[in-house]
Amino acid sequence: MQGTRLDIGRIRAARRVIDPIFLDSPLYRCEALEPHLGCAVSVKLETANPIRSFKGRGTELVASLLADSDGGARAVVCASAGNLGQALAWSGRRRGLDVTVVASRFAPAVKLDRIRALDARLELVDGDFDTARERAAAIARHDGIRLVVDSLDIETCEGAATIGLELVDSGPPVDAVLIALGGGALATGVGHVVKALAPGVEVICVQPLGAPAMTHSWRQRRVVTTDSTDTIADGVAGRRPIPVVLDDLLQVADDAVLVREESIIAGMRMLLDQAGLVVEPSAALGIAAILEDRDRFAGRHVVTIVCGSNVDVDDYRGWMEMAPAL
Amino acid sequence: MQGTRLDIGRIRAARRVIDPIFLDSPLYRCEALEPHLGCAVSVKLETANPIRSFKGRGTELVASLLADSDGGARAVVCASAGNLGQALAWSGRRRGLDVTVVASRFAPAVKLDRIRALDARLELVDGDFDTARERAAAIARHDGIRLVVDSLDIETCEGAATIGLELVDSGPPVDAVLIALGGGALATGVGHVVKALAPGVEVICVQPLGAPAMTHSWRQRRVVTTDSTDTIADGVAGRRPIPVVLDDLLQVADDAVLVREESIIAGMRMLLDQAGLVVEPSAALGIAAILEDRDRFAGRHVVTIVCGSNVDVDDYRGWMEMAPAL
Repeated sequence: MQGTRLDIGRIRAARRVIDPIFLDSPLYRCEALEPHLGCAVSVKLETANPIRSFKGRGTELVASLLADSDGGARAVVCASAGNLGQALAWSGRRRGLDVTVVASRFAPAVKLDRIRALDARLELVDGDFDTARERAAAIARHDGIRLVVDSLDIETCEGAATIGLELVDSGPPVDAVLIALGGGALATGVGHVVKALAPGVEVICVQPLGAPAMTHSWRQRRVVTTDSTDTIADGVAGRRPIPVVLDDLLQVADDAVLVREESIIAGMRMLLDQAGLVVEPSAALGIAAILEDRDRFAGRHVVTIVCGSNVDVDDYRGWMEMAPAL
Repeated sequence: MQGTRLDIGRIRAARRVIDPIFLDSPLYRCEALEPHLGCAVSVKLETANPIRSFKGRGTELVASLLADSDGGARAVVCASAGNLGQALAWSGRRRGLDVTVVASRFAPAVKLDRIRALDARLELVDGDFDTARERAAAIARHDGIRLVVDSLDIETCEGAATIGLELVDSGPPVDAVLIALGGGALATGVGHVVKALAPGVEVICVQPLGAPAMTHSWRQRRVVTTDSTDTIADGVAGRRPIPVVLDDLLQVADDAVLVREESIIAGMRMLLDQAGLVVEPSAALGIAAILEDRDRFAGRHVVTIVCGSNVDVDDYRGWMEMAPAL
C-alpha cells in the first residue's frame, strides 16, 4: 500500500481522546443471517451509542482539539446529511462549543430533530448535501469559525479508522469487510487500517446505484461527479467526491460495488427479522452487496459495519412493508 | 445488606472466564426517550451478542466449569423459556459439550429454532416453563448428567451479576436500576452488586401482572406460587419461585412492581421508535414501570437493562401495530 493521509500511530492515539462510549462497539457473528446469505457474517454495530451512528468517533477528535486550543475558536460549523451533525452537536455540547449544522431540508426529520435537541443551531438549505456543504463553507468564511468537512478533515477519517483497529485487533479473522461508501471517511479510515495491519482482508466499498459518484470515481481513478442522487440511503448520497479522499480510497479499496434500492430494503428487513437490528439504509449496504452477489461471498466470513440507525419511523415502516418476508 | 449467596470477589473472577463477547455491553443515555418518560434514561444493552440476551454470561461459567472438570460430565441439561437454552447451547457447542434443552412447546418458535440451530438436543413439553423444569430434572436424574437450574445455580446469578459490576464500575451515577424479574438470577445478581458497591441506588424489580409469583413472594416474604401465567413476557413467566433465590432477593431488592401487558407493549414500541431497539417483552418491563408511575421517576436518572431481543417476527409486528404511536 502506498501512503494515504492516515497514520496508524495517530489512529491509535485517537482512541485515548474519543469518549469510550463510542469505542469497542459490539462485534459478533449473526448466525441467523447466514442461511439466508450463504456466508458467515459478523456485524460491527455502531448504533448502540447516544447518537446511533459511528460519527461520534470523529467528532470527538474535532471537538476535543477545538476545546483544547488556547483561546481558540469555540465555534464550529459543518454540513451534514444528518448523522455528522448529531455527532458534532453531541461532542460540542459537552465541551461548551457553539455548533452550527447545515443540512438539506429533505434530510430525515428525525435526524434534524435530534440535531436541534442536542442544542446545535440548525440551518436548512433548499438543496441536497452538496448544497449544504457550500453553505457551511460560506458560514465559516463569513464568521471566521472552524469548518468541519466530513471525509476531508483528517479527524473524521481517523475517528472512523478506530473501527478498523477494533476489527483487526480484537475481531475474529475474516475474509472481507463491507463498508458503506459515501464521502469516504469510513471507507478510507477502516480501509487504511485493514490494509496496513491485515492486508489479506478484502476491503469492499458499497454504494447505492442511485448515488454512485465515488464508486465511478474509484473505477475511473479520477473525480466523477453526478448531477443528482436518487436513493433512500440518505447518509451516503453525495454528488461531488473530494479529490484527496479519492486518492486515499484508491490506495485502500480492493473493490467498490453498486447496489439496487430493493437490495438495500431487503437487507434492512433481513437485519430486522433475523438479527433484531433496526438500521438506516446506509447501514444495510453490506448485506445488500451479499444479496446481489452470493457467489462471490459463498463460504467466506465477512464483516459488515452497521454504521447507523437513525431512521424516520414512518419511512422505516413503509420500507419494511415493502420488503419481502423471508 | 445481610448476606446473599453471591460474593463480589467471585463475580469479579467470573469476568475472566466469560467470553468477552458478552462483557462490557453498551451502556448509554437515550435522550430521545426522555421527553416521553420525564426522566433521564440509560440503557444497558444485552442484545448485541450472538444469542441476543444476557444469558451467555451465566452459561459461560457453567460450561467452562464443566469443560474443565477432570474426566467430568460432558453432558448437561436445562429447562429454558428459550434464552437460557440458546445460551447454554452456544457455550456448550464451543466446548464440545452435549447439551439438552427442555422447553415448553408454547415458547416462541424463534427461540426453539435457534436452540436447534446451535446443535443442542431440544425436548418440548406440553406445559409451561415449570413443567419443563420438572422434565429437565427427571432427565438429569435418569441420565446422571449435570442439571442447570436458572437462578438456583450460582453461576447463573454470578454471570448476571457481572452486568451489575459494569453498571457500578463504568456507568454514570444513576438513581435507580430497573430489572426484569423472572426466576431471579438477573435481579439477585445485579441487585447484589448494586447494594454492595452503590447502596444508594434503588433496585427495582419489574414483573408482569400476568406472572406475579416472585413479586407476590417478595412482598409477603414467603414463597407464593400461582396456578398459571398470562403474559406476552415469556422470558419471565414462572409460577414457582425458588426459596433460596427469594431469600437473596429479599436482601437486595428495594421494590418489586407489577406492570400491565399494554404498558409492556407501549414500552417495546417506545424503544423501537425512539431508541431504534428491537426488544422482547421482558426487556421492556423497565420502560413499562416508568410509564405506569411517571411521578416516581420524574427528574431522576434510571438505567434499565435491555435483557433480550429474541422475538418472533410475526408476534412482534402484531404488538407494534397494537401499540399507540407517540
